[in-house]
Formats: sequence, C-alpha cells, structure tokens
Amino acid sequence: MSKLVHALKDALVSAGLRDGMTISFHHHLRNGDQVLNQVLAQAAALGVRDLTVEASSLFDVHLPLLDHIRAGVVTGLNCNYMSGGIGRAISHGVLAKPVRFRSHGGRPDAIDSGRVVIDIAFVAAPAADPMGNANGVMGPGACGSLGYAMPDARHARKTVIVTDHLVPYPLIPASIPEDEVDYVVLVDSIGDPKGIVSGTTRITRDPVGLAIARYAAQVIEHSGLLQDGFSFQTGAGGASLAVTQYLKPIMKRLGVTGSFGLGGITGYLVEMLEEGYFTSLLDVQCFDLRAVQSIRDNPRHCEISASRYASPGVRSAAVNSLDAVVLGATEIDTQFNVNVHTDSNGLILGGSGGHSDAAAGARLTMIVAPLFRARLPIIVDRVLCTSTPGSTVDVLVTQKGVAVNPRRAQLRDRLRQGGLPVYEIEELKRAAQALTGVPRVVRPQGRVVAEVEYRDRSLLDTIRGVTGK
Amino acid sequence: MSKLVHALKDALVSAGLRDGMTISFHHHLRNGDQVLNQVLAQAAALGVRDLTVEASSLFDVHLPLLDHIRAGVVTGLNCNYMSGGIGRAISHGVLAKPVRFRSHGGRPDAIDSGRVVIDIAFVAAPAADPMGNANGVMGPGACGSLGYAMPDARHARKTVIVTDHLVPYPLIPASIPEDEVDYVVLVDSIGDPKGIVSGTTRITRDPVGLAIARYAAQVIEHSGLLQDGFSFQTGAGGASLAVTQYLKPIMKRLGVTGSFGLGGITGYLVEMLEEGYFTSLLDVQCFDLRAVQSIRDNPRHCEISASRYASPGVRSAAVNSLDAVVLGATEIDTQFNVNVHTDSNGLILGGSGGHSDAAAGARLTMIVAPLFRARLPIIVDRVLCTSTPGSTVDVLVTQKGVAVNPRRAQLRDRLRQGGLPVYEIEELKRAAQALTGVPRVVRPQGRVVAEVEYRDRSLLDTIRGVTGK
Repeated sequence: MSKLVHALKDALVSAGLRDGMTISFHHHLRNGDQVLNQVLAQAAALGVRDLTVEASSLFDVHLPLLDHIRAGVVTGLNCNYMSGGIGRAISHGVLAKPVRFRSHGGRPDAIDSGRVVIDIAFVAAPAADPMGNANGVMGPGACGSLGYAMPDARHARKTVIVTDHLVPYPLIPASIPEDEVDYVVLVDSIGDPKGIVSGTTRITRDPVGLAIARYAAQVIEHSGLLQDGFSFQTGAGGASLAVTQYLKPIMKRLGVTGSFGLGGITGYLVEMLEEGYFTSLLDVQCFDLRAVQSIRDNPRHCEISASRYASPGVRSAAVNSLDAVVLGATEIDTQFNVNVHTDSNGLILGGSGGHSDAAAGARLTMIVAPLFRARLPIIVDRVLCTSTPGSTVDVLVTQKGVAVNPRRAQLRDRLRQGGLPVYEIEELKRAAQALTGVPRVVRPQGRVVAEVEYRDRSLLDTIRGVTGK
Repeated sequence: MSKLVHALKDALVSAGLRDGMTISFHHHLRNGDQVLNQVLAQAAALGVRDLTVEASSLFDVHLPLLDHIRAGVVTGLNCNYMSGGIGRAISHGVLAKPVRFRSHGGRPDAIDSGRVVIDIAFVAAPAADPMGNANGVMGPGACGSLGYAMPDARHARKTVIVTDHLVPYPLIPASIPEDEVDYVVLVDSIGDPKGIVSGTTRITRDPVGLAIARYAAQVIEHSGLLQDGFSFQTGAGGASLAVTQYLKPIMKRLGVTGSFGLGGITGYLVEMLEEGYFTSLLDVQCFDLRAVQSIRDNPRHCEISASRYASPGVRSAAVNSLDAVVLGATEIDTQFNVNVHTDSNGLILGGSGGHSDAAAGARLTMIVAPLFRARLPIIVDRVLCTSTPGSTVDVLVTQKGVAVNPRRAQLRDRLRQGGLPVYEIEELKRAAQALTGVPRVVRPQGRVVAEVEYRDRSLLDTIRGVTGK
C-alpha cells in the first residue's frame, strides 16, 4: 500500500479537483515556493475553473497566479498576507470578488471551526514518505516548521503531499502525520529554500531603524515585564529584528532568563536560545536557514501548529502567554490603530500575518516605525486600513521617542521614570508633519477589493481599489 | 492567564460535570493509574450519577469502579480491554447496561467521527505546564507515550489535565498541546509508574512458550516478508514477546534491517532498535520503563496517536504498513476466529486492545498459543466470543507446530518448504483433545453483559453473563 501518485496532475485528478473548489496552500517556502504555481498550472491545463485559493500568504514568486485569475481559473482568494506585486494587481481590480484577509490565528480558527472548508490541501513538504508522513526539516527544500499547513492537512477533504525528497516509511519526525494524508506526489522541486529569506527578515543597518530598536528594548526593560520567564516575539521587519540585539545586553545586565521566543523564528532568536537568553522557541514558521537548522537539531526549538500559535478559537494559543511583541506598521493613527495591509496610497502590500493576533495576546504590544518614510508621515489621523485595532496596541516607538496608549497610564509612568522620551501620539504626529508638511490624504474610492476579517470573526475593515486612477 | 484549578473537585465543577455525562480516561499508567479512581471518587462526593466511563482500558487497580457502578454513579462503560477483576464482575452482571468493547483503533475512530462524544476527558499527565501542554516522558509518573489520550483531548468538550509534575510554560515536548486543554490540576500523585509493567509484559520462561516463540520466528523467516524494511509488532503476552529473542539471530544471519517496530513498545523492541535491527519505533503506549526512557531520549522512538496507530477511519494507520504481528489468544476456533475477551468459561478477562486492528492491517498475522492451558484445549469448534475474525488471521503457532488459514495456501507451502511442522487446525485440535479429553462446553446463558464492536463499526459479537451460576 502506498499513496504515491505518478505526477501532480494525477494527484489533482485523484483528489477530484473540479470547478468551484477551494484549494489551500501554506507559505513556509515564502518567496521560494513553487508548489502553488505548479498546482495552478496543472489545474489550468485540466481546464478547471472558478477555484478559490486559500493561501496562508502569497509572495511575488506567485505572480503567475494573476494570469490564472485573468483566465478565470481562480475567482476567489483568501490569505493572511500578500506581497506588493500581487497586492498591486488586487488593488487595481484584477479579481472581481473581494479578497478575504484573515490573520495567522484567524485562518486556523476558520478552518478548525468549519467556516472555511478546504476541498484539497496541498502541502509543500521538504520530506515525505510514501504514506504521507511529512516534515519540513529534511531534504533540499528544508524550510523548518510546517505550522501553517497543519490545520489544512487536518481538516481538508483531501490532503496532497507534494515533495521532492521521498524517504522510506516511516519518516520521523512527522509534522503532518499519515492519518491526515490522501496522496503523495514526487516532483522535481518544491522550490528554493533560499527564497525563505525574503527582504523583510534581516536586521536593519539604517541608523533610524537602530535608534527605534534601542528605544524599543528600553521600553521592554522598563515595562516591568523583563523578569525570569519573560517571553518575546518580533515581527520580521528589520527594525523589529534589531530589537533583539539591544535586548540581549539588557537581559544580561539584569540577569534575566526568558522562557520562550515565539512566532516566525529568525537566526537572531536562535542565537538567543543557544546563548541561554531563552529556554525555548515556539516556531510556527522559520524565517531563515539558521532557524531551519535549529528546529531540526535542537529539541528546545519546538514546532507548533498555527492553531496553537495564535488561534482565538482554541482553549489557549501561545500568543496568550506572550509578554512582549514588537511589530511594524505602514501607518498608525492617533487612536493607535495600525495598518499593515496597504501603503500610504492605499495599495495593498502586506496583511496581518500574526500582527493582530500577537497584539491581542501580548501583555505589551509595541509598534516600531519611523516618523516618516519617503517624506510621508507614518502617524496619521485615520489609517487607510485598520489591520490591528488600537485597543490592542500599547506603545508606539519612533526614532524621536515613544507614545503610550492612554489606556496604559501606569505603563506611561513607568517609561517616563525609566528615562524614555515619552510623548503624546499627537505630538509625534506634529513633529513629523513639521518636517514633511501635512500630506494630502487620498483615500482610494474604487469598489471593495478586499475585506479584513478580524480574529474574532468580525469584519474589521474593507479595502477599496484604486481602479480608474 | 493560567488554567490551573485548585483541586480535582474544582476541575470537575469548572468543567461542568453533571448527571449523564460521558467522561474519558486513558490507560498508559496501566495497573499503576490512580487518576480514574480519584476522579470517580470526587464525582461520587459531588453526588453526580449516571456517568458513562469511556476508558481505553481498565485494570484491577480500578476495582473501586465497581463500587461506583453499584452506587449508580457509573451506569455506562466502554473500553477496549478490562482485566480479570473488573471483567468477572461485569460477567456477573454488576452493570445493567452492556459494556461496549471497541478496539484500540475502533475507539479513536468512534471519537474522531463523533459517534462517541466525550463531555470531559481526563488526561493523566506525568508532566504539564499551567496552560495544559502535557507529556508522558518527564516527572515521577513518567509513562512514555500518551497516544491513547490524544483523540480524547482533541475532541472532548472539555479536557482536564491531571498531573503531579507541574513545570513552567512552555513544556517541551507537548504530546497534548495547550490548544486542546481547558483545565490543569495538580494532584499529589497520578499513580505509580511501576504499575506500567503488569504481568503480561515479560518474556515467558516456560519451555512451551519458548517453543512456540521459536516456531513463530521461523514462520516469519519463511514467510517471504523478512527483507530490508521488515516491520513488526508483538502483543504484550509472554510468548509473543519471546518471539523477539528468536527473531534477532535470524535477522542477523540474513542481514536484514527492519524499518519499524509498532504498537505497545517493550524494552525488547527498544533493544532491537538500539542494536540496529529496526530503524525506528512507532509507539502508542510504553509497556515498560525501558521503553519510557527510550521514547524520551531516542528521536527514532516516535510517539504516535491512537488514530495514527490503528484507526480504520483515517487516511492510513501504521497498522496498514505492518508486515508481521504476533498476537495471543485465550481461544481460537477451527475457522481461525480468536477470542481475547473471555476465558474458556466465558468470564471476561481481556479485550481486543489492538488485536483485531493489527490482525486486519498486517500482511502476516500470527496467533501464538499453547495447545491447552490448565487441561483446557485452546483450539475449539467455536470461540465463546469472536474478538478477531478468522478472515484476518493467517497462522496459528503452537508448541506442536503451525496451522495455516486455508485462505493462505501459498504461505502454507512456503512454511512447509521451510521445514516447519504444518498441520491442519483440526489436526492440532484433535492432538490437544487426545491429551486433555474433549471438554464439555458451557456457553454462558445470562443476559448480554457486553457487546464487541468491530473496527468497521459492526457488532462482531455479544458476551453473555454467567449470572445465576
């Protein structure tokens, strides 16, 4: 007995792919992934139409998706994040139906609860055996954690493992277990793991970014949370990552040993684990090859499912135990609402990822952002898109200083006592505008091209297209 | 945030325990378990009645259950196995409603599919953190795999972790992840891991048993299956276990490296892993402390869920990839049907466990049994209870020789060519009767006290009580 099928096309046929189905993908290979493209090319060749693509995230490597949209092969799209190339086309109206954006926690909740039904889940598996046991830590395309694929494999009507590294049964460890897998197909390549390291996962060298990171580390120091057992997450932006390098000497000086680092895991967090700053890492996705190596070799570096990472629908997710998270923003408004979906012109170039989940869960949510980018102020009166509600944001950290959400008066006092330059967010907004001038705000006026579903299942915002401009 | 409750009673109250509910337990602590007794004592103290106990297996340590049955606290009982002390009381009619027996694969299928709904699952966890991450490999009550508890924790309306070893968050590894857990309670002791080693998990020293084991190893040698990649399971009976010691020199002589050992894992299989006879172990339950140590320390010794082990409802279970399994019997009839539920008088003293699952999955299913026990022949015209259908049994191995199911004519020829003493099963039956005489068969005539549900969900047999005798 074996679940091997001869070619990807056979897997699609065997799994019963037909018009109108929902097919799912995960993004651990990030901008190196080739599985989504291969599957859609085969679906198109089979003449299938009207598919909904349920992808955890999309990158510019997936630009061929746009052709399948134009051809009617794909007519629905749900994801948690999309890179600028895909996003621009969505903003320009390539897809008739609005994209449904969820978060890295909201997506598994939708799948676990049955609100989203996946007909066929395609798992890009760096290693698999003929019965479908699969992991991400072996083979030429090793990408580390397969956390985002886990809810898909568990709940999809059919699960297809796509691998370029087939090993004898039984593969150990099995991140996706055979009992959830229907078909296994061996392809030449699932992608290029070098593409895992996309541009957002390197520490900034920009002095503004480094100044922000230094303040962010000081906010943590004076927050009252930096005690033994401290837990920490950073986003994958350059300034967010830079916080780790300022946090380490503070933890060393205070003699604090943290408990866990969470989230998309980078080499910077691996280093902190190996140097004893944290006792463990909980990893839903590896952001670089150092992290891939670590999750394979270090038992304290632990793979977790997307549900366990951040779902609001489970009994508890790891984000609920998080002390501090450092996140980015393209815009933040004076109510502390954060936009990570669009740029300042309203063009889609991102998505929540785990942003709103970590913000909701953490005791201390910090947004790191420069006062302005390309002469456009980051602090605005009203964000073009609310990705993360201001009620879940505690501190904005800029190169000039920090602003504390008025809901956190005690925290504001602590930071002042710690010597941090604390401003009202309005003050920081005016300081930026003094340098850049007050920009003319142009809100896109096209039809709704995307809906942002919050992790509590409510409609948080809609994104209008820029069609006609 | 923490899921800790002060005491077991509080966990029951918080989880909403009330009359008529179904509560579940797993049996990794075997005859050392104290959690089932503690929970039922608390339920009784709370005045709760009419509970259904959904236990993977019951041992004589659970004899207090009988008092709760007599008192009306427990009125329903489902399990895959019960030891003689409990079984005798069931056979004598202590419970008005028939016990529902399932198999180790049928039970997770019933739970995964929603046919069995568990209101509260109680997980006896040797280690846990305050958010409910739990494993079986740390702490004073370490029992190894928690495979049988996994379907329960995943699907129960409420999951309660009961532990005597609480560690800081996050516990790694997490066999039961926090996202499935509602409450955590710290008790003085979950039981005595020495009780894991019950009487059935030691190699026999009896010369009859050893002769049977030697023949069984020879059956494997000549079956055509003993090639690189060979996979193997034994039951926990003394003769089944003894097969390993005869199999090793054969594998060594033939230069065969096996792939995996499966099932309840003993130190004998651990030794074969460590000595390179197998490349991995798939472990749903540790049968002794050597296995507990190995699953903690050896990455090739892999914990699997009950669903992945043996469920007929999943895409594939490990038993589907199994080459050979060696199983016991209290009776086997001339149609090769096997009884492991009752003794020769019809008194309940066992259950399927994984017997019928492994038999259905394996390419070669061997039953090892002496020709007679206590002057009672083991081969009968019709078993008192069909636990495993004869259609899934290939070979009976006795001290006199082997009998091959007529459905496997080619296998019979192979064994004859291999020099094994091959008989018709009728011949072996007569040989035993020549020594013991023909026993008077007394089939219990009481009401139905238990129903045996086969892994395909059909009713395989019923067991009548011996009331009135």
